[in-house]
Amino acid sequence: MVEQKATNVHWHEGDVTREHRQQVLGQKGATIWFTGLSGSGKSTIAVALEKELISRGNITYRLDGDNVRLGINKNLGFSAEDRHENIRRIGEVSKLFCDTGIIALSSFISPYRVDRDMVRELHESAGMDFIEVFVDCSLEEAERRDPKGLYKKARAGEIKGFTGIDDPYEAPEKPEVHLHSDQMSIEDELAALLEELNKRGIVAAE
Amino acid sequence: MVEQKATNVHWHEGDVTREHRQQVLGQKGATIWFTGLSGSGKSTIAVALEKELISRGNITYRLDGDNVRLGINKNLGFSAEDRHENIRRIGEVSKLFCDTGIIALSSFISPYRVDRDMVRELHESAGMDFIEVFVDCSLEEAERRDPKGLYKKARAGEIKGFTGIDDPYEAPEKPEVHLHSDQMSIEDELAALLEELNKRGIVAAE
Repeated sequence: MVEQKATNVHWHEGDVTREHRQQVLGQKGATIWFTGLSGSGKSTIAVALEKELISRGNITYRLDGDNVRLGINKNLGFSAEDRHENIRRIGEVSKLFCDTGIIALSSFISPYRVDRDMVRELHESAGMDFIEVFVDCSLEEAERRDPKGLYKKARAGEIKGFTGIDDPYEAPEKPEVHLHSDQMSIEDELAALLEELNKRGIVAAE
Repeated sequence: MVEQKATNVHWHEGDVTREHRQQVLGQKGATIWFTGLSGSGKSTIAVALEKELISRGNITYRLDGDNVRLGINKNLGFSAEDRHENIRRIGEVSKLFCDTGIIALSSFISPYRVDRDMVRELHESAGMDFIEVFVDCSLEEAERRDPKGLYKKARAGEIKGFTGIDDPYEAPEKPEVHLHSDQMSIEDELAALLEELNKRGIVAAE
């Protein structure tokens, strides 16, 4: 990976590849996949990382329920089949961002190991970096926070199949980064993520 | 739009927006949508534009059958419903690229006006640039070229519902750029596209 952004890449022949885009961008494309319970702090750390990286001149894009469920996945519901297809499409979109040279920050509960492993395989079989980040928070703490009031509804039986209540969360066995969001500060979480990104040459060390 | 790439954007508060990414990238996100018959030269001009733009330090991403039909749309066939859903998803992905600040080069026959107008509306309702490029080529010339041998198969009845043979191509009525690919040189086509991009401030004039 080159360290500096090039404003003028001399182009001679052949198709434009991921490597060329990465050279212009001065970074390596990657998918950082945040998984964890509702309320565990996935979006909070993804937003913090996005801010930190753009201040360094890196380009990221956050994929989350807001821009996915209302857009590409707006024709999907919450059946088992649709949940699987939801994660598959997000995985494919993340992969397109990687191929562009962008750092995709994908933040979804994604409770099933088989789905996350499918997305990992999509990336790794194409030589792309997939960084699984387990945003680990006790159910008690996530339920105490309950930022969207969803646990309350799930406990009252108004929402069925809610992860952690009446549907399982399958914790990652070997995540690239394991954050204990009920014990770590945002600064410490950021440091752990940046260390992983530096180690892989995704962004240049400051 | 800023003209120079910033390597260090001073970040203070609030969420990272499209504007900030565009500032770092030194360009404006946009979708350039190439529509036309099979064999009309959509991919040829998209590849040429991609090369020209990266040589100027601009970041584009080409969406085409190769990376879409094998990825995000691999569970779609060629029924009327699936063709519509194919274009819808491509439109949504293009929009995500726009929102990132990337110039999406989307190259699909996309024969139906209603589908292209849907993708336009997706973009324009979000304040994003959608540039419809009609790659206009006579059926005779497209069929003479027949780079993939598809017209031959369609004439032999081996492919049903082929655009231009037994399925209609609805030409754009007011495309932003109208290329006559059976009469213009690639250089002239490129010049027409760059003029449109400069006019809209998507890329800086050379």
